[in-house]
Amino acid sequence: MSVVPIILLGLGGVGRALVRLLVEHRGLHAAEYGLTFSLLALCDRDGGVIALYEGLDDVTLLDLVSFKAGGGRLAEYSAGGPQNDLAAVIDIAGRTGAVVVDCTATEATVPALLYALDKRYKIVLANKKPLTVEQEVYDRLTRAGRTEDGRPPRQLARTRWETTCGAGLPVIATLNRLVASGDPVQRIAGTFSGTLGYVMTGLQQGQPFSEVVTQAHELGYTEPDPRDDLGGVDVARKALILARGLGWQMDLADVEVTGLYPAEMDGLSVPEFMAALPTLDADLRRQVETAAATGKVLRYAATVEKGRCVIGPTLVDAASPLGRLTGTDNLVEFHTRWYAPTPLVIQGRGAGVDATAAGVLSDIVELATMGKE
Amino acid sequence: MSVVPIILLGLGGVGRALVRLLVEHRGLHAAEYGLTFSLLALCDRDGGVIALYEGLDDVTLLDLVSFKAGGGRLAEYSAGGPQNDLAAVIDIAGRTGAVVVDCTATEATVPALLYALDKRYKIVLANKKPLTVEQEVYDRLTRAGRTEDGRPPRQLARTRWETTCGAGLPVIATLNRLVASGDPVQRIAGTFSGTLGYVMTGLQQGQPFSEVVTQAHELGYTEPDPRDDLGGVDVARKALILARGLGWQMDLADVEVTGLYPAEMDGLSVPEFMAALPTLDADLRRQVETAAATGKVLRYAATVEKGRCVIGPTLVDAASPLGRLTGTDNLVEFHTRWYAPTPLVIQGRGAGVDATAAGVLSDIVELATMGKE
Repeated sequence: MSVVPIILLGLGGVGRALVRLLVEHRGLHAAEYGLTFSLLALCDRDGGVIALYEGLDDVTLLDLVSFKAGGGRLAEYSAGGPQNDLAAVIDIAGRTGAVVVDCTATEATVPALLYALDKRYKIVLANKKPLTVEQEVYDRLTRAGRTEDGRPPRQLARTRWETTCGAGLPVIATLNRLVASGDPVQRIAGTFSGTLGYVMTGLQQGQPFSEVVTQAHELGYTEPDPRDDLGGVDVARKALILARGLGWQMDLADVEVTGLYPAEMDGLSVPEFMAALPTLDADLRRQVETAAATGKVLRYAATVEKGRCVIGPTLVDAASPLGRLTGTDNLVEFHTRWYAPTPLVIQGRGAGVDATAAGVLSDIVELATMGKE
Repeated sequence: MSVVPIILLGLGGVGRALVRLLVEHRGLHAAEYGLTFSLLALCDRDGGVIALYEGLDDVTLLDLVSFKAGGGRLAEYSAGGPQNDLAAVIDIAGRTGAVVVDCTATEATVPALLYALDKRYKIVLANKKPLTVEQEVYDRLTRAGRTEDGRPPRQLARTRWETTCGAGLPVIATLNRLVASGDPVQRIAGTFSGTLGYVMTGLQQGQPFSEVVTQAHELGYTEPDPRDDLGGVDVARKALILARGLGWQMDLADVEVTGLYPAEMDGLSVPEFMAALPTLDADLRRQVETAAATGKVLRYAATVEKGRCVIGPTLVDAASPLGRLTGTDNLVEFHTRWYAPTPLVIQGRGAGVDATAAGVLSDIVELATMGKE
């Protein structure tokens, strides 16, 4: 039986779901993989709870999950006392083979992640931000060692970031496999937002934009401010991670994003924005009708091709995998030398805390079984 | 730079394509992964060519590929002399970190593979046979170490068999990830034969069975004896590999296979079989029409569900991913706790020597980068 120490950063929805899955599947991981996961430290924005030797026990873990779900801060949690220096937590808690899991949504973890890598820990990221800041940070997190000329080599052995793009769908794993085999990827096209999938499906069915957005907002499918979805920046981060995965060197500012509302509406309050939505209906209806007139359909897609990442309403063939998609599923097409004329397609739920946490757990098991006999 | 010794068993189409890819992508693997693949030994049915220290040079490798493509036997190849004892080849050629790659289509490699695992080499299988003989062989190849009570643990670190099911499509990787995360897989449904996909698409478009099979035969889409495709046994092997991947203990004899022709036609010669095909037209036309009358379509599918593997003509919802598939692509639906109501879907070319060899190469790179810094 191998004991795998885990340091978990972030106890939002995904982090809490991950803790629940780790506790729920202790039997599976022991019996099927010979692994015992030991949570040495849980950290949130300004605090941490640490149990250095045996790891936190399951009763405490589930109590912490409830505490956090109720809006608590770890700095106030009685069992462990405050810890607000992530590097110190990693330093103290670290052991050979430790895995640092980042389920936050902030770039503030970057120094701690780089420090952990320097200490030869393994890293699992559900957090997109560290991979979408400067290229150098991406390279350090996903490439290993030092070379004299040029960039260090890719390493698949110590970092996993599957859930940064399409939650638990095997998008990054597929990309990494294509790159490793030398199969030239000519184009990646995909939808990476269930919310925008819902909106585009409604538009295609003839609903006015204002109506479908209002509906999605009321159903809780959108962020509290729907512009966080409609603006496309989250999709842009995912596309950037794919492009960098192809070996391209580019930054978020290089991604060409067209949102579903004009920039001048950024100044409005949320109620004002919702009230102003009908002004956008005619233009989007026209785009949908123009598409239909040429056998196409309109998708809110990311296209990674010929050195460019383009995000926005996109005309796709109605008969293509993307064109046939409806609803909130994500779908990614990889067009390559060997996957032509039809692409390699990955489709399914691309969001949700449980599917994401399950993907994070797969990443952890992969790293933990590596090098293990 | 890490040197990764490779011993390749089998120089059929996939083995030869793999050698070409390894030579073609030397620069990529050196620059991007810090890896140099060194082919120490190539073996076919009754011979081998070995170069123990530096590995075979690229000129010799490409010459060997041409020689084999022209129908030669390695036992007759002048450079290395005959070697007909695979274990001895592995013994001689083996080095730390060696990867044994099985691109044959015979279970005769099993003793050599087990011997290689005992010597702590890594294994990549494109060959389905070793995973579809006795359960114990599957377990030894895909599980590691010894436990006192029950089966040894799964190990993801030393064996890869992605291309045994759907060629380069990430089907096994996806299955392994779902299992590792504890997400219960309730049903796997898929098409795993481009040939049968072509036949079923033709049937759905109203072509008589005899006509579409004759066409597929003439286009070289089928095996020389089309019954090798139409009988479904190859699909059954793939389904068994998926079922065993879920942790089920079952044998090929437990897979319930319904072919597209009755068993009494097994005694015919190929020309007799082709001539007798029209006798099957009416029944298949009726099945397609019955399906259509209830909003379903007929697919030649594998269904892995509730302890059973069922292979044969299957009614699926016309609006499901499987129902919407046409042509020769493979498609696999994973229905799980987190992938419900819509499944996780993998779709694309599921055959072909180049796509398969590329998948084998991805497996090799994954194993080679493991444990590497």
